Amino acid sequence: MTRRGLDGFLVSGIKNIRYLCGFTGDSAYLLIGRERDWFLTDSRYVTQARAEVKGAGIRVYKKPLEAIAELADEHGLRLIGFESDNLTVDACGRFRKALGRVRLKPFSGLLDALRSKKDPFEVERIRRSVRILTRCYGVVERMLRPGARECDIALAVEAAAKADGAEAMAFDTIMASGPRGALPHGKASDKRIRNGELVVVDMGVVFDGYNSDCTRTYCIGRATARVREVYQTVLDAQMRAIEMVRPGVAAAEIDRVAREHIDGAGYGAYFGHGTGHGVGLEIHERPGIGPFGKEVLAEGMVITVEPGIYIPGWGGVRIEDMLLVTADGFEILTKAPKGLVCI
Amino acid sequence: MTRRGLDGFLVSGIKNIRYLCGFTGDSAYLLIGRERDWFLTDSRYVTQARAEVKGAGIRVYKKPLEAIAELADEHGLRLIGFESDNLTVDACGRFRKALGRVRLKPFSGLLDALRSKKDPFEVERIRRSVRILTRCYGVVERMLRPGARECDIALAVEAAAKADGAEAMAFDTIMASGPRGALPHGKASDKRIRNGELVVVDMGVVFDGYNSDCTRTYCIGRATARVREVYQTVLDAQMRAIEMVRPGVAAAEIDRVAREHIDGAGYGAYFGHGTGHGVGLEIHERPGIGPFGKEVLAEGMVITVEPGIYIPGWGGVRIEDMLLVTADGFEILTKAPKGLVCI
Repeated sequence: MTRRGLDGFLVSGIKNIRYLCGFTGDSAYLLIGRERDWFLTDSRYVTQARAEVKGAGIRVYKKPLEAIAELADEHGLRLIGFESDNLTVDACGRFRKALGRVRLKPFSGLLDALRSKKDPFEVERIRRSVRILTRCYGVVERMLRPGARECDIALAVEAAAKADGAEAMAFDTIMASGPRGALPHGKASDKRIRNGELVVVDMGVVFDGYNSDCTRTYCIGRATARVREVYQTVLDAQMRAIEMVRPGVAAAEIDRVAREHIDGAGYGAYFGHGTGHGVGLEIHERPGIGPFGKEVLAEGMVITVEPGIYIPGWGGVRIEDMLLVTADGFEILTKAPKGLVCI
Repeated sequence: MTRRGLDGFLVSGIKNIRYLCGFTGDSAYLLIGRERDWFLTDSRYVTQARAEVKGAGIRVYKKPLEAIAELADEHGLRLIGFESDNLTVDACGRFRKALGRVRLKPFSGLLDALRSKKDPFEVERIRRSVRILTRCYGVVERMLRPGARECDIALAVEAAAKADGAEAMAFDTIMASGPRGALPHGKASDKRIRNGELVVVDMGVVFDGYNSDCTRTYCIGRATARVREVYQTVLDAQMRAIEMVRPGVAAAEIDRVAREHIDGAGYGAYFGHGTGHGVGLEIHERPGIGPFGKEVLAEGMVITVEPGIYIPGWGGVRIEDMLLVTADGFEILTKAPKGLVCI
């Protein structure tokens, strides 16, 4: 660790720690020194740390602040960087107090930026996560029928995902039928699906730590003219935004293209969220793809593109794919069929 | 909001927001003023907020900091308290910048302290969460056999919990057989359970936002003398600690009683974690029940008592119950059978 005159850098974000040294547990710190690194955890995780952690000496603490202060003292660390984007104000205050004369310097998004570009090890895991997810959409299509309860379909999908090797769902499955579709984050409820309704299905799974994320919207029974129009507007907005994806393009530009298309069709008031986000060890990570995003796409990023239209009292349509940003454009990772499917 | 001379208090912890106004979504702020309160969220959650939020006006933001600054300006709020235990250093810096001349004052654990004492509405939900969990242990007992895979049992339990009304598992189910039991947090893996092994099963479910948490340890086949000794040591430690529970007792005292018993039996080096924690809207909340805990038990708290012994290469035993602190003692909420069950 020689950059920026630091003697050390304290990593506190648990996913950042996993990214750097492989630890999959829930409670740890990683202190990166100039010549060596220390992994610190409590006794619950020692056995696991010994099996998983690569490239850092393992220390067990009873009180983490004291253990870090001790290391700083032993090794003469005088200026330590810390992650100001995940350490709370209180934790930072406690660190300053425990570390005494050691100075702390805030850094924001250092590891998030690194993590936004996936290496082949990560892309492979994301592909496997997406493959499981694609099969989950097959389960959804087989079960979506008038009379079925949202929560029963969600439960069957979760069982299928786990039987297929997923370690968990990436988030509570969103299955929002009829007017519930106007809730962009409407978790599966005990509502029964009815003929004529749209159903927004947003799901993800976790495979070996890596998330996947995809949304499809289905029509139960015959699609009305309005359903066709709203669906086509979202699909066109999504396809146009996807076609913009390549290294060097501003994330905000992807959002702008989707948003302008939906605005142009007269539905601008019904698309309130950002167009997408990065996906990796976390379900939402860098880059953010919204109107205020400042990031620029780069090769190796994995992002979602997911515009939607949500009309209170009527329902919603969202279509979301995961894309890998390649050297000269993009690869769509999510293979579940797209296009208005009437069931 | 008149205490401590504040003009307002900004609640940013999402569970604290749920606790105060009923919102179950993922993204919001609650600004408590002297005469009225404002609930702020983005457009994804407007419909949900209108259905759920009680006692606060709803405002929709595109940029939360700007929206809060605007409210402060409109209503002349000059000194606003904030939750320094869940706002990150970065977020706090952005707030200070956006709020201009408004002063921000840190408060730590204000709502956590309130939330640690459950009201009857909450206790009822916790009871229902525990009831579902107790039935899950029935599923475990029926499926625990030599040759069964940890992950298959975990999956069956999760399906049963959801069919029984749970909205989610409270955490990834821990099902650690044989030497894996030495990992206090060994998530269910594809390992098959073998004759003669101990299996640590730590599970929880969420019902209407409220968590439950329980651990049982089973012996597959005949228990050796060492298994009996370790099991009995943990059980005695747990029972002694439980018997201490009543209002006015220091949380650290509960920990001390369990720890001293395990120390006295010669297994002190194998019990590294704290003895328990509060449970409610979060699976781990106040009070912390460990050697360094400073809290005192009070009527209405819901806590776990869960000592364990973890011997690397051999396995582990943990026994965990959830207790309600009553006016004159405790009520054990978790009803799954306890005592060394050989299967």
